[in-house]
Amino acid sequence: MQRKVLITDCADEPGLITKLTGVCYAHGLNIIKNSEFVDNSQGRFFMRTELEGRFDDERLLADIDKVLPAQRHRRLVSKGTKRIVVMVTKEAHCLGDLLMKAYYGGLDVEIAAIIGNYDTLKPLADKFDIPFYEVSHEGLTRHEHEHVMMDIIAKFNPDYLVLAKYMRVLTPEFVERYPNRIINIHHSFLPAFIGAAPYRQAWERGVKIIGATAHFVNNCLDEGPIIKQDVIPVDHSYSAEELAKCGRDVEKSVLSKALQLVLQEDVIVYGNKTVVF
Amino acid sequence: MQRKVLITDCADEPGLITKLTGVCYAHGLNIIKNSEFVDNSQGRFFMRTELEGRFDDERLLADIDKVLPAQRHRRLVSKGTKRIVVMVTKEAHCLGDLLMKAYYGGLDVEIAAIIGNYDTLKPLADKFDIPFYEVSHEGLTRHEHEHVMMDIIAKFNPDYLVLAKYMRVLTPEFVERYPNRIINIHHSFLPAFIGAAPYRQAWERGVKIIGATAHFVNNCLDEGPIIKQDVIPVDHSYSAEELAKCGRDVEKSVLSKALQLVLQEDVIVYGNKTVVF
Amino acid sequence: MQRKVLITDCADEPGLITKLTGVCYAHGLNIIKNSEFVDNSQGRFFMRTELEGRFDDERLLADIDKVLPAQRHRRLVSKGTKRIVVMVTKEAHCLGDLLMKAYYGGLDVEIAAIIGNYDTLKPLADKFDIPFYEVSHEGLTRHEHEHVMMDIIAKFNPDYLVLAKYMRVLTPEFVERYPNRIINIHHSFLPAFIGAAPYRQAWERGVKIIGATAHFVNNCLDEGPIIKQDVIPVDHSYSAEELAKCGRDVEKSVLSKALQLVLQEDVIVYGNKTVVF
Amino acid sequence: MQRKVLITDCADEPGLITKLTGVCYAHGLNIIKNSEFVDNSQGRFFMRTELEGRFDDERLLADIDKVLPAQRHRRLVSKGTKRIVVMVTKEAHCLGDLLMKAYYGGLDVEIAAIIGNYDTLKPLADKFDIPFYEVSHEGLTRHEHEHVMMDIIAKFNPDYLVLAKYMRVLTPEFVERYPNRIINIHHSFLPAFIGAAPYRQAWERGVKIIGATAHFVNNCLDEGPIIKQDVIPVDHSYSAEELAKCGRDVEKSVLSKALQLVLQEDVIVYGNKTVVF
Repeated sequence: MQRKVLITDCADEPGLITKLTGVCYAHGLNIIKNSEFVDNSQGRFFMRTELEGRFDDERLLADIDKVLPAQRHRRLVSKGTKRIVVMVTKEAHCLGDLLMKAYYGGLDVEIAAIIGNYDTLKPLADKFDIPFYEVSHEGLTRHEHEHVMMDIIAKFNPDYLVLAKYMRVLTPEFVERYPNRIINIHHSFLPAFIGAAPYRQAWERGVKIIGATAHFVNNCLDEGPIIKQDVIPVDHSYSAEELAKCGRDVEKSVLSKALQLVLQEDVIVYGNKTVVF
Repeated sequence: MQRKVLITDCADEPGLITKLTGVCYAHGLNIIKNSEFVDNSQGRFFMRTELEGRFDDERLLADIDKVLPAQRHRRLVSKGTKRIVVMVTKEAHCLGDLLMKAYYGGLDVEIAAIIGNYDTLKPLADKFDIPFYEVSHEGLTRHEHEHVMMDIIAKFNPDYLVLAKYMRVLTPEFVERYPNRIINIHHSFLPAFIGAAPYRQAWERGVKIIGATAHFVNNCLDEGPIIKQDVIPVDHSYSAEELAKCGRDVEKSVLSKALQLVLQEDVIVYGNKTVVF
Repeated sequence: MQRKVLITDCADEPGLITKLTGVCYAHGLNIIKNSEFVDNSQGRFFMRTELEGRFDDERLLADIDKVLPAQRHRRLVSKGTKRIVVMVTKEAHCLGDLLMKAYYGGLDVEIAAIIGNYDTLKPLADKFDIPFYEVSHEGLTRHEHEHVMMDIIAKFNPDYLVLAKYMRVLTPEFVERYPNRIINIHHSFLPAFIGAAPYRQAWERGVKIIGATAHFVNNCLDEGPIIKQDVIPVDHSYSAEELAKCGRDVEKSVLSKALQLVLQEDVIVYGNKTVVF
Repeated sequence: MQRKVLITDCADEPGLITKLTGVCYAHGLNIIKNSEFVDNSQGRFFMRTELEGRFDDERLLADIDKVLPAQRHRRLVSKGTKRIVVMVTKEAHCLGDLLMKAYYGGLDVEIAAIIGNYDTLKPLADKFDIPFYEVSHEGLTRHEHEHVMMDIIAKFNPDYLVLAKYMRVLTPEFVERYPNRIINIHHSFLPAFIGAAPYRQAWERGVKIIGATAHFVNNCLDEGPIIKQDVIPVDHSYSAEELAKCGRDVEKSVLSKALQLVLQEDVIVYGNKTVVF
């Protein structure tokens, strides 16, 4: 008995749920959980079906294809531990939370490697026996720097890349290599305070709430599909530094939660948005 | 074209989604939204299907019955304005919020009548031209008092009764007359502070959060199936009276949200719990 | 015995609390509650002192002036019911909440008059016997329109103006007439989604949280000092219209809470920020 | 230049703020932050004063004593790193968060030692080079078991004991040895679900919100003064096990926040409550 998730996404038309679940039923698969969504503004249908049984992947997908309209995506993914590579700069809180959750089973993930553009977090990686690669950007062009990183990433063949406070902007070439597979944590409630120093911006604006946003990375700065956001209340007594310190807790928790949703195959990207089942 | 909601609830078995949605499809009905849940601890399947089209209710339910296993419930309800009777004592905030939301369309509800055991809120009912019945409990047995109220309620044939800070305990006889149709707001985060004076209890305990709970009424005091809960942070500086004052806002908002869920047919009761789609 | 609030704001220097509370003590006044804040980035001291006793306002302020450094503000305000004029367009939810809270004592406020640029909300004002002035902007220059409103406002001499979803931009002339006395509710979590149609913007961006912001109005659109913000979680299934509908609840609650803070004299404006004690 | 916190707590009477801040001023100390609270129900005054300067502790406290009424407490504590001993059983999430925050400076704390009644968490302690003492309760009386632990604790002379999911009830003798110095995390929103298996209780009750409570330990089970509480929304789809898993995140975050408040000397205990400045 295996457990897999079938994700389908196509133009909406009547009867899709019956047909799709009918194929699964005909294959002797048990539906553990089914979730659908129709975006009426675009006439688009999304379904996530968690299945249990004995799978003949090829035949199942072929039968699914027979009942789906033309413009479709579908994928069948095994449940279970996924592999990630984490990219960092100097701040420890997000990486630390991922390491700890991977350690005690709070996230069903294997951290295959950590890449930092400084060596600041190597001692932390060492504690958990995760290979740490320092790839300094100094003396390298952006292109060269990213190519060194891509070569390292290739060795580990990760399901996802997680930017755990990696503080450099990635080039379109890098981003396109991992479409909808790079997850970033931005230290503000997007789209407020795009770009640098969001806590200072928040302090200057005198906001009463600060937040964090986890999103997939695309080629617009801080503009990819949002997976998860959360906020905490603050007040006039916080300096910009204190906002940043408090913000760490919400950053790490939002990144972990977003990653969990992605690992569970609960997230479908379409256009610049996500469906999160 | 009409819109209705089909609610089904039965022992779980393979193929239910396919069969149920298949019946709807065969009837030419379009599924606007479908939600399912399986309680694995009890092997029970729940589904809510929002349908659009031309309905032959009798035939549809008969066809549904053919595919459902034996121990089942199913109902088909029209979307649209529901009718409620509101019961109150002296506090205005919950009733006021319901009146205002009914007035501006924030809730799709018709408040058919208001019954109070005091006349304190008659002037408020008058502003909105809703019939107000003062039914004082003084000089009456509990049984007599409730029978006067039941006679009034019967005239309006409401879909639901809403206890908007009605401060008397109802008898089993009254409660059984309206099974899963009485919604109460309790001024605490149940099951903390069951019973009288929850804000004073909260103050004495020194809690840092207070809350409110909307639930269906059954024959255990403050023990019916919970529909919605919410909380607000408080601190040492609040007196019991200030807790009560702040609590009003969360009470009224929780009651409104719970009622909206019920009116939209998003809530299924089973045992002492709810499924809220 | 009276109760008043003394608000002081000056360059920071040692001994201010001792000196200021010492003056109050010497006047035989009892300190009910004292709150201070120093903004270290600007070396500025803020204090709010709630006092009880018999007041000789003139002498008290003169004695306060003797101990405060040169660049100072101070004011002494009576606790108790304040008077507001509310400006509206067509949406009822914020006005409705203010009317209801004023009615049952949830806000210590007298709504002296309501001004609308449409007559949509006149029936609601009538229910509560509040004078409603329709001042249509049609056929008038912006200047003429505002002058009609200012003449009406002048008759009621309000402590504050509350923009309860008043959907027109005010001119600098109007704003300057009521410095730090106009409170607006903006239907987004500022500074995200400044300007028109914030819920549509939020929907297009695919955010997972929406919010509302109450702020004092100054001469930058949606840029005045923020008093209060709050948010609610949303997801992909909300249309722009459903975001707007949900948003109403957070708008009305944020506006009410901000107004309550202002009415209690808990808010000090400095620069483009607020201290909220 | 040093920074210290003066905490005072006495019967309320007029002039206390002036007198207390006056003593500090006379000592040439600068007040960084001052917070007061009067519990009117008991006529009790509380003040926390953060001071900077050169301290003559003995003389300062003597002068404070001269101006305070008879039934008083006062203490003067240095700001800065505090020392804790952590007690655990088998669950890693709370200990892990404390270790990580101590590592990257998210908490200003030195974890001097960890005591577990199982050795499950020894490998985690080892990663951070913190001494781990396995003190199995098996084969020992409760009295003997606690005495072994007390001997270990004595060697490290900690400021506080933190029960990071330590799953055994402590005896009055143990508790009285560390009055208001033992901080526990309870995995429910107290006073709901006191005692064992709160997540199962929550699941059976069908609550829509779960929470966690950090409190000082006294001699009533789950009844000590509450420091911090927080909650997360849940729904019908969570099994008891999933509630427990989600609950871990709120447990660890509430314990960390409570500890931070205690470490900053923001918390005053009185009776069975706390003042948290």
